Amino acid sequence: MVPQKVTIAALEGIPLIAEGDDLAGHICVGMDRAGFEAKASDVLVVAQKVVSKTEGRFLRLDSLTPGPRAYELAAATGKDPRFVEAVLAESVEVVRYRPGVIVVETHHGIVMANAGIDRSNVDADLVLLLPRDPDASAEALRTRLLERYGESPAVVISDSVGRAWRNGTVGLAIGAAGLPALLDRRGARDLYGRPLEVTMLGYADSIASAAGLVMGEGAEGCPAVLVSGLDWPRDTSLPASALIRPKQEDMFR
Amino acid sequence: MVPQKVTIAALEGIPLIAEGDDLAGHICVGMDRAGFEAKASDVLVVAQKVVSKTEGRFLRLDSLTPGPRAYELAAATGKDPRFVEAVLAESVEVVRYRPGVIVVETHHGIVMANAGIDRSNVDADLVLLLPRDPDASAEALRTRLLERYGESPAVVISDSVGRAWRNGTVGLAIGAAGLPALLDRRGARDLYGRPLEVTMLGYADSIASAAGLVMGEGAEGCPAVLVSGLDWPRDTSLPASALIRPKQEDMFR
Ligand SMILES: Nc1nc2c(ncn2[C@@H]2O[C@H](COP(=O)(O)OP(=O)(O)O)[C@@H](O)[C@H]2O)c(=O)[nH]1
Ligand SMILES: Nc1nc2c(ncn2[C@@H]2O[C@H](COP(=O)(O)OP(=O)(O)O)[C@@H](O)[C@H]2O)c(=O)[nH]1
Ligand SMILES: [Mn+2]
Ligand SMILES: [Mn+2]
Ligand SMILES: [Mn+2]
Ligand SMILES: [Mn+2]
Repeated sequence: MVPQKVTIAALEGIPLIAEGDDLAGHICVGMDRAGFEAKASDVLVVAQKVVSKTEGRFLRLDSLTPGPRAYELAAATGKDPRFVEAVLAESVEVVRYRPGVIVVETHHGIVMANAGIDRSNVDADLVLLLPRDPDASAEALRTRLLERYGESPAVVISDSVGRAWRNGTVGLAIGAAGLPALLDRRGARDLYGRPLEVTMLGYADSIASAAGLVMGEGAEGCPAVLVSGLDWPRDTSLPASALIRPKQEDMFR
Repeated sequence: MVPQKVTIAALEGIPLIAEGDDLAGHICVGMDRAGFEAKASDVLVVAQKVVSKTEGRFLRLDSLTPGPRAYELAAATGKDPRFVEAVLAESVEVVRYRPGVIVVETHHGIVMANAGIDRSNVDADLVLLLPRDPDASAEALRTRLLERYGESPAVVISDSVGRAWRNGTVGLAIGAAGLPALLDRRGARDLYGRPLEVTMLGYADSIASAAGLVMGEGAEGCPAVLVSGLDWPRDTSLPASALIRPKQEDMFR
């Protein structure tokens, strides 16, 4: 079940991505140039940012007219009311806020700061929203690679997020296809033959965090990495939405 | 700053660990057998469980006499009152509880379920506590490797934890030495030359999550992995305690 060695390798040469660009095509070029074969046992991790760019999820800040709630939250947090308007439009609930921070539940159900909208690596005056349906984006990328190669790595779409009790951001899986984003180890046993106490692994989240070590957050220009050597039950698959804890089971809201 | 390729490799042949065992010695044997050199640019990730074992952090469940608070919480959560007594003894605050779950702040300041006490991969009737001071444990391991090789990888002590808003466990750094557990990217720029918006990375947490992909949670017998190819500013170092968000900055308690 568990591998001896995992590698995380950058796909190089991906250009700045604009709306409508053929991201899958650029990824294939990166795979070919590096001599990587498309294997169903590998995982391609792609940064949210380039997926959103190719899907045209840009908004012009000055096209936005903040409502009263946006002005209120902007005053309380010190943020641009137009930016807050964009955050609210992407959210179903404001979970917490205070100066500098707005934590919401996005329309996907993900609890995160600013509904995942950030402006790093995005052209000035624009904000970039999360993909509308990141699991579908992952599936679509996987289909493109399947068509191209006859076989495809699993696909994870990652984003960098803060956490409730910890400083610093880590990578998280917001979309997934071709692997169990949540890995069920029920029935597995420990070194003493006893059933495991904790059986659900945040598998795609761990893969996204690992990938983030190679992607970086700045001008690295590395929005896609290939993770090789993992070993999951090949007949199981769950989208990243399976990683979302339903609100009624959440003790921290 | 960011690498092209990172590898995560298991150190094989580590036996079942008991109190007082020479964990550093076993790790060195594993390094040597695999032909790994000790490099300051690598990270050795070690599972909490074997660190706790070697430090003798075992308790016999039937040596514990639950107090009234433990009986109360045991009734509310359906847990063994003696186990709850152990959790309370390791905690400074009960943060949330409900059937099946107790989330506490440990004496280290970490917010986690059951104060990190679990019984998987531990001999029957015993429970295993977290190391008393995991940053010191990491530093001590690093010192032993330095003595042995003249150079040492950074050391991260990992544990598997649940999260507030997400299903599934991921690896977290509870101890670290020789690297910046929290990586400060202030001053870095994005692809457009603008300063990054989010500048603090949960670096050691991401490394722990990556390592967890190779360690597994069950009978794999792989409590130590070597992560190679990372690239951090070599003159910076912060312990894992830097990853703990102080309670007064925590919006979710
Ligand atoms: N080649 C390329 N890299 C990009 C582009 N946008 C972002 N990146 C890179 O993708 C990685 C992750 O960037 P980040 O802004 O943290 O993305 P996020 O975590 O998905 O929000 C970094 O290496 C960026 O330099 C792009 O349009 N083209
Ligand atoms: N060789 C060896 N492996 C162990 C021992 N205890 C745990 N492990 C392995 O360490 C890895 C992590 O185990 P886990 O119980 O999840 O540890 P934790 O995450 O630190 O609480 C798994 O591969 C276990 O099989 C031990 O005493 N010896
Ligand atoms: Mn993002
Ligand atoms: Mn990022
Ligand atoms: Mn543990
Ligand atoms: Mn574990």
